[in-house]
Amino acid sequence: MTHGFLSADRLFDAEPTARGIARELYEGIAGLPILSPHGHTDPRWYAENAHFPDPARLLIVPDHYIFRMLLSQGVRLEDLGVPTADGSAVEADGRAIWRRFAENYHLFRGTPTRLWIDHTFETLFGITERLSAANADAQYDRIAELLTRDDYRPRALFERFGIEVISTTDSALDDLSWHRMIRDSGWSGRVLPAYRPDNVVDPDFEGFGANLDRLGDISGCDTGRWQGYLDAHRNRRAHFIAMGATASDHGHPTAETANLGAAEAEALFDAVRSGKADAGQRALFRAQMLTEMARMSRDDGLVLQIHPGSLRNHSPSMMARFGRDKGFDIPTRTDYVRALKPLLDVVGMETDLTIVLFTLDETSYARELAPLAGVYPALRLGPPWWFHDSPEGMMRFRQMATETAGFYNTVGFNDDTRAFPSIPARHDVARRVDCAFLARLVSEHRLDLDEAHEVAHDLAYGLAKRAYRL
Amino acid sequence: MTHGFLSADRLFDAEPTARGIARELYEGIAGLPILSPHGHTDPRWYAENAHFPDPARLLIVPDHYIFRMLLSQGVRLEDLGVPTADGSAVEADGRAIWRRFAENYHLFRGTPTRLWIDHTFETLFGITERLSAANADAQYDRIAELLTRDDYRPRALFERFGIEVISTTDSALDDLSWHRMIRDSGWSGRVLPAYRPDNVVDPDFEGFGANLDRLGDISGCDTGRWQGYLDAHRNRRAHFIAMGATASDHGHPTAETANLGAAEAEALFDAVRSGKADAGQRALFRAQMLTEMARMSRDDGLVLQIHPGSLRNHSPSMMARFGRDKGFDIPTRTDYVRALKPLLDVVGMETDLTIVLFTLDETSYARELAPLAGVYPALRLGPPWWFHDSPEGMMRFRQMATETAGFYNTVGFNDDTRAFPSIPARHDVARRVDCAFLARLVSEHRLDLDEAHEVAHDLAYGLAKRAYRL
Amino acid sequence: MTHGFLSADRLFDAEPTARGIARELYEGIAGLPILSPHGHTDPRWYAENAHFPDPARLLIVPDHYIFRMLLSQGVRLEDLGVPTADGSAVEADGRAIWRRFAENYHLFRGTPTRLWIDHTFETLFGITERLSAANADAQYDRIAELLTRDDYRPRALFERFGIEVISTTDSALDDLSWHRMIRDSGWSGRVLPAYRPDNVVDPDFEGFGANLDRLGDISGCDTGRWQGYLDAHRNRRAHFIAMGATASDHGHPTAETANLGAAEAEALFDAVRSGKADAGQRALFRAQMLTEMARMSRDDGLVLQIHPGSLRNHSPSMMARFGRDKGFDIPTRTDYVRALKPLLDVVGMETDLTIVLFTLDETSYARELAPLAGVYPALRLGPPWWFHDSPEGMMRFRQMATETAGFYNTVGFNDDTRAFPSIPARHDVARRVDCAFLARLVSEHRLDLDEAHEVAHDLAYGLAKRAYRL
Repeated sequence: MTHGFLSADRLFDAEPTARGIARELYEGIAGLPILSPHGHTDPRWYAENAHFPDPARLLIVPDHYIFRMLLSQGVRLEDLGVPTADGSAVEADGRAIWRRFAENYHLFRGTPTRLWIDHTFETLFGITERLSAANADAQYDRIAELLTRDDYRPRALFERFGIEVISTTDSALDDLSWHRMIRDSGWSGRVLPAYRPDNVVDPDFEGFGANLDRLGDISGCDTGRWQGYLDAHRNRRAHFIAMGATASDHGHPTAETANLGAAEAEALFDAVRSGKADAGQRALFRAQMLTEMARMSRDDGLVLQIHPGSLRNHSPSMMARFGRDKGFDIPTRTDYVRALKPLLDVVGMETDLTIVLFTLDETSYARELAPLAGVYPALRLGPPWWFHDSPEGMMRFRQMATETAGFYNTVGFNDDTRAFPSIPARHDVARRVDCAFLARLVSEHRLDLDEAHEVAHDLAYGLAKRAYRL
Repeated sequence: MTHGFLSADRLFDAEPTARGIARELYEGIAGLPILSPHGHTDPRWYAENAHFPDPARLLIVPDHYIFRMLLSQGVRLEDLGVPTADGSAVEADGRAIWRRFAENYHLFRGTPTRLWIDHTFETLFGITERLSAANADAQYDRIAELLTRDDYRPRALFERFGIEVISTTDSALDDLSWHRMIRDSGWSGRVLPAYRPDNVVDPDFEGFGANLDRLGDISGCDTGRWQGYLDAHRNRRAHFIAMGATASDHGHPTAETANLGAAEAEALFDAVRSGKADAGQRALFRAQMLTEMARMSRDDGLVLQIHPGSLRNHSPSMMARFGRDKGFDIPTRTDYVRALKPLLDVVGMETDLTIVLFTLDETSYARELAPLAGVYPALRLGPPWWFHDSPEGMMRFRQMATETAGFYNTVGFNDDTRAFPSIPARHDVARRVDCAFLARLVSEHRLDLDEAHEVAHDLAYGLAKRAYRL
Repeated sequence: MTHGFLSADRLFDAEPTARGIARELYEGIAGLPILSPHGHTDPRWYAENAHFPDPARLLIVPDHYIFRMLLSQGVRLEDLGVPTADGSAVEADGRAIWRRFAENYHLFRGTPTRLWIDHTFETLFGITERLSAANADAQYDRIAELLTRDDYRPRALFERFGIEVISTTDSALDDLSWHRMIRDSGWSGRVLPAYRPDNVVDPDFEGFGANLDRLGDISGCDTGRWQGYLDAHRNRRAHFIAMGATASDHGHPTAETANLGAAEAEALFDAVRSGKADAGQRALFRAQMLTEMARMSRDDGLVLQIHPGSLRNHSPSMMARFGRDKGFDIPTRTDYVRALKPLLDVVGMETDLTIVLFTLDETSYARELAPLAGVYPALRLGPPWWFHDSPEGMMRFRQMATETAGFYNTVGFNDDTRAFPSIPARHDVARRVDCAFLARLVSEHRLDLDEAHEVAHDLAYGLAKRAYRL
């Protein structure tokens, strides 16, 4: 092709009236800064501002969307350079990895990965030809060369992308030294930590006991006792807040919450702390801790994000060979109505607290999440998550949640990614899909055009700004 | 705006061919009388035919769709004039309530409430400017003035709305005196009662034991014994039928049914009657009673409506302060296939009995409800209920149910509302969405235009007329 | 009507750009041969090549989609000629049956049956007027006359339909004599058996014990012992493979799998074989056998098809009167993530094994099936099954599965039918809906046109060819 391959109308309905409205709405928000209140980029990048590695190590090796699809069609993770748990050798040649990706690029037809890659290639690397086995080397060379330039280092990209603020996700045990380094550097980019205490809240997490010891050391609190353990959380949260955090994040197998009496909670902690708690007690502890975190959020103002319902590391053989986060986290049916009741009984009616609910179970959008968020002041709905961070997924979310929860009980977009170069692409997809949804409402006379402009702005910027207190 | 703000094409697909077909279909049915076989308006209105109160008390205070959305964004129910359980003071100034609604009208963007309000304002009150903080007082004044006129009293509106027949929903303990007053008045409006025995069928209902005593008194049957209790139901049903009822309605937490042997049923009744039944027995009693009601329907011809799956009064603090029906009824996952089997084993193959199934769990449309209604002669599918009484909700219902159940195993529209002025708006939305769905079938050559006209008529009028025996 | 009533654009979006693309894509694949790797036609038809019976016995009596819909509206199965279990008399007059169908043809509006019938009538019988009570006799006569012609016998139709290969479904106890007769006849049509061992795998199947005795007799293996029983399966599978089979098929109530140790499995078999196993043991045996079948597939190359989640014979009275497969099989909620884990732990990472997953629970598409098939090399997704073999059902499948699983983890279309004359119609619907879906992607600039052509070809032909090893 001789011209850019990204159409200005991509993701808009083909019907001319709706498309015209969508285009007008999008033009009003396309240039807004990016708010990224929930993501997984590495703060070290912004702190050190080193050059990114080769194209494969930047774009393929760390992207679980990409390597899981290739694996599903028989490409071994070893051949994609994914590191093994025991350090045994894997493909080290970035170009060879790149070629494997390129010759299988057709597998991504119809997936969001395809949209993200094409957008990134064109807007960031000036590539206007679809990736293929034939042009793999040329595109690799072009990207590799650009990555050596200073204007492709992390901070330069951060600024080029128009990121107003980005949040990382950080272990409760993290000393936030990279964040401190960023702050001390005098660079103006706002990179905030988020408090993610799963490894000291979930008794099933590897090394839970040792993690609690470590939490005690860091916080100076006695994590051998329930009250000391809670104090340690308060201490760490305060540290995160001092470093700019506005949110915590909680990845639980289910949305279960509990509200035990003080003595019961203390006894449960003792059982868990001793390592002798059974599966039911361990689940109950996680449930209780969500409520404790909500109470702390009420006190210290951190937005509470709940990410439930992923069965992690489904394949034991792959877990053994490659470790966590290798594409084998599979969504499961998730209930919210009864599960959240204990927590909501405590803090659901609070108007100064924000709890953001996410789901991987779309059946809950219309049945449970929208009705809950449409009445409890403390609740808001997070954007479509993970496998649903996609055009069809986003459209289903708007279609199923809006009529009961409205737009204003949602919180805008989260890119949720560790793939830094794809951040503009992901926000662009979200903005376009929201404009397409709004354009349909306008074209069907369900919403006025002036209102749609306002809503588009809120979905792209205002809602995230307010909900996450940015 | 200088012209009416309701487009003649609202809710129709923007694509011109489909829109043209939808418009043509709609024109063929827009003027049909309204059949409202399931709703919650107050028979006293039609009996006394008094003027409605001020705009806020008519349109805001009793509408749970409205106050739950405002509450979700931090507006206190007290400030909306919602009465408290203990009678402690709430906002008494209708205009102040109205202003709070007006300044938050943006929250309803994308919701059915917005469509209903706009339709009601324009067609009933001649208002053609979108509600806002700026025009709140003017619109309040206009509506308030109109409500003082005789042609805005209940019977006049009933006639203006083109209501052919409306059903209220009445406790089994209701003496139907308002209905008698309507009948005795000589007014031609058809207002029918419906038999709703939840408070004498559900052992978890407040005052269940006393309710059964009362049922005994009213019916002259011995509600201390199982057979007497069943006789009391028969007695009350006969009274309702004599007063015009054609249907009963049953709101259960689940769709569970049971078919116990006579001795077992009697023993279960005794346990429930004594107040000593455990949770499992109480659930089993509700399940058994659905089957008993189905048997009675087979005998006396009342259409049996089953409305399962709402977890009522989710927030105990709100229940304590404001009582039932305050927006805290949340849908839950609901199974039908195994749950209904005991009942269907008894009456499922009857061709003279009509059981109308409703759901708040859309996952059951294609998986369970359409396959069941598509084979059992006794079953029909009710329209999308409650949170799904909305354009997207209705479209999903047609898309998910039609291919397996067809159109003729559905029963047309229920407005299901206590918001009397919104009844034409609700039927209008349903008629438009059905025409939009049919227009898509026609434009994609899946249905001929002459057939679509017939189906549109049946969905708007014929199916309800026949299914509810009106 | 004076011209054909099938529009060339049926099932394509009315929007002209999308429709034009869909039409172009469809023209590229409309003439491809039919691959039918999963269906239920009778091999005897191809073996004997006798004339089909009268129109009613060919098109109405054996079609559960048709008679269940008529039954749901009060038409008795006896009056449709459906045979009773005890042989008591039913309607024997084909014309009378046909008239009942014709006068109720409006019931099928909006259903896939309507599309299949119209397509079959026009393309096979040259009928271009919609069926009605008025033309019922004329259409009956026309079809009846054509059925007496030699070019309407099974082999002629097979060739006219452009069937490259078709698979039947055959009991493990079947001697495949019809298949042998086909093969020995010298006819070039490829008709393959598929190994369906439900009656010797499911202890709840009628006559399970006797079936195992019979399996022992046929295979010469000792089906009184676990190892002999497994050997008998291997023996039968080898026979099926020798006769051309490339796949096995497994219809289980759930997707549960198990991976017991050898001693445990043997003890379980003994309990099941003795007829004394309880419900839990019987379910566990089915679960274990899926894993055993997967192991055998790994060894012998048969594609493993899993069809879970139908609650069979829901109505006991209809089962008693008419037997199995009379429209009373109702889908149930089905979980895959935990259920398949034992099997996947054993064979999920195999790249030479193909397991095709089907579902009747659409909630699993995006939540479970696409994420699983999008990472495990052994897994593929089957096409929308049964009630979802329909335009809306197929569109939902593509919308919900593609973004996570892509197109290449699906296996093309299965017609899944015993209604032989409808096979071209069913493939035509699938091809059109897939083209409509692809056209939307192209018109929204989510996929390039050249790619859409390739994908359309793969969905219509290539994927089935490769997945089923045809």
